[in-house]
Amino acid sequence: MDRSTLINQIREKQTFLCVGLDTDPDLIPDFLNEFEDPVFEFNKRIIDATKNHCVSYKLNIAFYEAMGAEGWNTLKRTIDYIPENILTIADAKRGDIGNTANKYAQTFFKTYDFDATTVAPYMGKDSISPFLEHEGKWTIVLGLTSNPGSAHFQKKQLADGKFLFEEVIKQTAKWGSQSNLMFVVGATQTEELKTIREIIPNHFLLIPGVGAQGGSLDEVCRLALNKDVGILINSSRGIIYASKGLDFDKAAGDAAKSIQQSMKVYLD
Amino acid sequence: MDRSTLINQIREKQTFLCVGLDTDPDLIPDFLNEFEDPVFEFNKRIIDATKNHCVSYKLNIAFYEAMGAEGWNTLKRTIDYIPENILTIADAKRGDIGNTANKYAQTFFKTYDFDATTVAPYMGKDSISPFLEHEGKWTIVLGLTSNPGSAHFQKKQLADGKFLFEEVIKQTAKWGSQSNLMFVVGATQTEELKTIREIIPNHFLLIPGVGAQGGSLDEVCRLALNKDVGILINSSRGIIYASKGLDFDKAAGDAAKSIQQSMKVYLD
Repeated sequence: MDRSTLINQIREKQTFLCVGLDTDPDLIPDFLNEFEDPVFEFNKRIIDATKNHCVSYKLNIAFYEAMGAEGWNTLKRTIDYIPENILTIADAKRGDIGNTANKYAQTFFKTYDFDATTVAPYMGKDSISPFLEHEGKWTIVLGLTSNPGSAHFQKKQLADGKFLFEEVIKQTAKWGSQSNLMFVVGATQTEELKTIREIIPNHFLLIPGVGAQGGSLDEVCRLALNKDVGILINSSRGIIYASKGLDFDKAAGDAAKSIQQSMKVYLD
Repeated sequence: MDRSTLINQIREKQTFLCVGLDTDPDLIPDFLNEFEDPVFEFNKRIIDATKNHCVSYKLNIAFYEAMGAEGWNTLKRTIDYIPENILTIADAKRGDIGNTANKYAQTFFKTYDFDATTVAPYMGKDSISPFLEHEGKWTIVLGLTSNPGSAHFQKKQLADGKFLFEEVIKQTAKWGSQSNLMFVVGATQTEELKTIREIIPNHFLLIPGVGAQGGSLDEVCRLALNKDVGILINSSRGIIYASKGLDFDKAAGDAAKSIQQSMKVYLD
């Protein structure tokens, strides 16, 4: 999905919500375990209930991978079920040298036809460029994450006074364009969001951490929205586990709709 | 496999070679494509031919993942085929926040019973600790990699004059012990190997980049060997693709034996 289609989808549906399908087989309602692929049944119903309130689904690969080979079949069924006009993100955070990075890009852009994948920057340009070579696909680089551990290295000050995450974002932005590159920035990092918007005013940001992790939608919008919207806000647990009963899909739909309604205000 | 068993294996077999089973289905001999699982057939024969000359096998997960669900079955067959007394490493370079890092640790230590897995440090302590909690398993953190891109961030100078990779190694070493933590250090980075040995004199290092990538066995041994040996040197393409003919396994065995013979000298 290209940039203008994504922006149009956001304007049309009045939402920049990304729903995280981080489905843990231990946390889904019991009755689903009667189905042949309980996790897919869960995802399918969540997708049916939320697809009008979001523009993207993000699948954290860890949850599927932990199930073994069958998990990858579940992943495939889920991807195939997501409507064409919704951006699919493989939250994989891969990072490896050139020929191996090629294989990872092949996994998420060819073997599984995701629109986007997250990558880790520690190994530098040759670990990121192979993803950027896939036309029509998005590479989403970890900039500044929402977890406490972001303080350990990402926020280390460099000799030139800047922080590592600033350098990562500044350098990486040169290797791609605003049409094939986004950055992950945690919603809990509001002070730094301003700095990041100065470095990359036009790029899309994928922002987790609103809700459960403590980030504020209002503050994120104030600091990160740009003329093309420029943000996708991810929510996972707050939506998919809104209820653990028979009504889990309805509850997920309601939770997503409620976020969409809040987002709508900022798009007017 | 615990530290003393690993050291004993090295002393007994007179080798600290790790063979990289980075098997690309496009690069294996044609005749193997008649088998139901060509990549496993390839791996099986490589293992048979090299197991007496190495103490470890490292499977770069990218190559298996790119094959889809079937690739994970091939991975499982390969792991199951490797003899008990050989250290198995999942070269996965995963890195994600707490509850997701748990899932990745589950993948490689439970769903697939690897002895060790590589992880990326960019997201800090909560992305690494969940791996360290698995008793009897090894977490191998990317310190300084062998690729050109290592210059972009790993070798950035920090405000205190140190380089990022030094900080990563120094901090991470505090989160585990020399019995459950190793570091990846590229063989091409000889100048920095000395510095790294000063920071962590006792930890095992997993060293790729000897051979094809230009690192020298002699220089690496001079700078990185310690009283418990303390290094595993990985070779992938130079061994598994030593020949592309019917004799590929014999050629791989010869290549591994030749490295083992060179290593033997440094163990005396």
